[in-house]
Amino acid sequence: MSMIVEKIPEKIRQYCKSIKKKDKSIGFVPTMGALHEGHLSLVKMSLAKCDETVVSIYVNPSQFGHGEDLNAYPRTLDNDLMLLEKMGISAVFVPGNEQMYKEDHMTSVEVSEITSVLCGKSRPVHFKGVTTVVMKLFNIINPDYAFFGEKDYQQAAVIKKMVQDLNIDVKIITGPIVRESDGLAMSSRNVKLNKKQRGQAPVLYKSLIEAEEMLMLGVSAVEVKQRIADKIKMQSEVLIDYLEIVDPVSLENKIDSKNGILVALAVFFGNTRLIDNILVNKIDNDRNQNEKAG
Amino acid sequence: MSMIVEKIPEKIRQYCKSIKKKDKSIGFVPTMGALHEGHLSLVKMSLAKCDETVVSIYVNPSQFGHGEDLNAYPRTLDNDLMLLEKMGISAVFVPGNEQMYKEDHMTSVEVSEITSVLCGKSRPVHFKGVTTVVMKLFNIINPDYAFFGEKDYQQAAVIKKMVQDLNIDVKIITGPIVRESDGLAMSSRNVKLNKKQRGQAPVLYKSLIEAEEMLMLGVSAVEVKQRIADKIKMQSEVLIDYLEIVDPVSLENKIDSKNGILVALAVFFGNTRLIDNILVNKIDNDRNQNEKAG
Repeated sequence: MSMIVEKIPEKIRQYCKSIKKKDKSIGFVPTMGALHEGHLSLVKMSLAKCDETVVSIYVNPSQFGHGEDLNAYPRTLDNDLMLLEKMGISAVFVPGNEQMYKEDHMTSVEVSEITSVLCGKSRPVHFKGVTTVVMKLFNIINPDYAFFGEKDYQQAAVIKKMVQDLNIDVKIITGPIVRESDGLAMSSRNVKLNKKQRGQAPVLYKSLIEAEEMLMLGVSAVEVKQRIADKIKMQSEVLIDYLEIVDPVSLENKIDSKNGILVALAVFFGNTRLIDNILVNKIDNDRNQNEKAG
Repeated sequence: MSMIVEKIPEKIRQYCKSIKKKDKSIGFVPTMGALHEGHLSLVKMSLAKCDETVVSIYVNPSQFGHGEDLNAYPRTLDNDLMLLEKMGISAVFVPGNEQMYKEDHMTSVEVSEITSVLCGKSRPVHFKGVTTVVMKLFNIINPDYAFFGEKDYQQAAVIKKMVQDLNIDVKIITGPIVRESDGLAMSSRNVKLNKKQRGQAPVLYKSLIEAEEMLMLGVSAVEVKQRIADKIKMQSEVLIDYLEIVDPVSLENKIDSKNGILVALAVFFGNTRLIDNILVNKIDNDRNQNEKAG
């Protein structure tokens, strides 16, 4: 059966209901398009786990702040659809703004606390836009499973919190970061890098690996942050938005070693803001416990 | 089959799923208990329309502000369950706070604009609490239809907006206000009135009827408000919280006569705050159009 491409919420809803009627499970991969291997790895996970896979492609304006790259965000719909069709998914939901946000739209979903740190600190409206649109998409598709990438670690954490707090009947599954051969995390925004920036960008992953090694050796979070910030700043034309070592559950600096440690960063290369992170699972000593990482 | 009484969200969810599996429709009546004929009229509507009816009883703390009557709110669970069992509903969901709000709860659903007027003005956190808990309840029960009383006119309007904006797959049905023989709108809070207050309270409905008559005759909204405020204030020990004549859709003073006109009020009798409203459908002239009611 060929892939369905639908822009009307009510129609994709009816399609998804017809799947559920047949007692088949639905896996859902929400995306903003400009698909890369990271997205496709989530689609593969869904295809393996669920009877039918639905992907959405929607560049959601409500998760972009003023002055952010909403208009410059890459859009490659034809290529995206070709890639998805080849993979054998069931349907793609491609709404426009006129379908998703009516003029009199006035409802939002918001997770507090864990959205005020990391990306939420520099992008104050971002996660409210994400949770609102994901709640809408979940209500339209009604999936059994939804797949999110671990590159957007905080986004996945926020979605999981929303699902738990609002009793949403969906299981959230995260997929590991997919990287280029030189370690750069796949991102739709990578195409915006010029040649020089593209050459510098792998420093992010190299720094995260170094941070992991130091943390495993028991170097304090404060010192690790300082050292990897210095390493990143050696590149010209970069600006660190944030660089944090936090508890992977609370996203706070107060680290509980039983949860492991999350090293997360956002760095501007020119106008292009890239994020990356590493989850350090095992700590050999307890020097990092309950330490204020400042 | 006897009525199921369940306090665990996941268990009532599984029960509701088993109903859906049989292709039966679910009608849902969310309540805070202390059931009266108003609630029961909604239950009857659901029983008539849907294959199975589920009622929830939960005094939701997040919709009460500081200093409001959360602790004093009447609780009559045994009697409520007896009434519901007699009516032949399928299940009652009776969660406790420990089921509904975990210690680390941090997610809310909020409708803006139409929640900043009328009850929202004097109860600033109220509707955020309502929309959050109703979203949770919808996600747990997954009803086809949900029933709300028109006494809480603004609440029903806010819920409808949330359903529309978040693409929630439920149809909202409202039921008319049920009144005592002397016109007082049924409310769980009526039991809090002392004898004198109970004697005075019918002035609310009498005033609304008078307002309707005046509006039909073309008296201006400003004048109607003044006259019925004077009438209510003739009672001792009452305090008008608000008294508004608004468009029933926007809830703003700018009235569009094609929508009709809503007269809504909230009045304290001692510590007991009662609300009531009347929807005036037909206006014989256009004197009220686009008039600033102040």
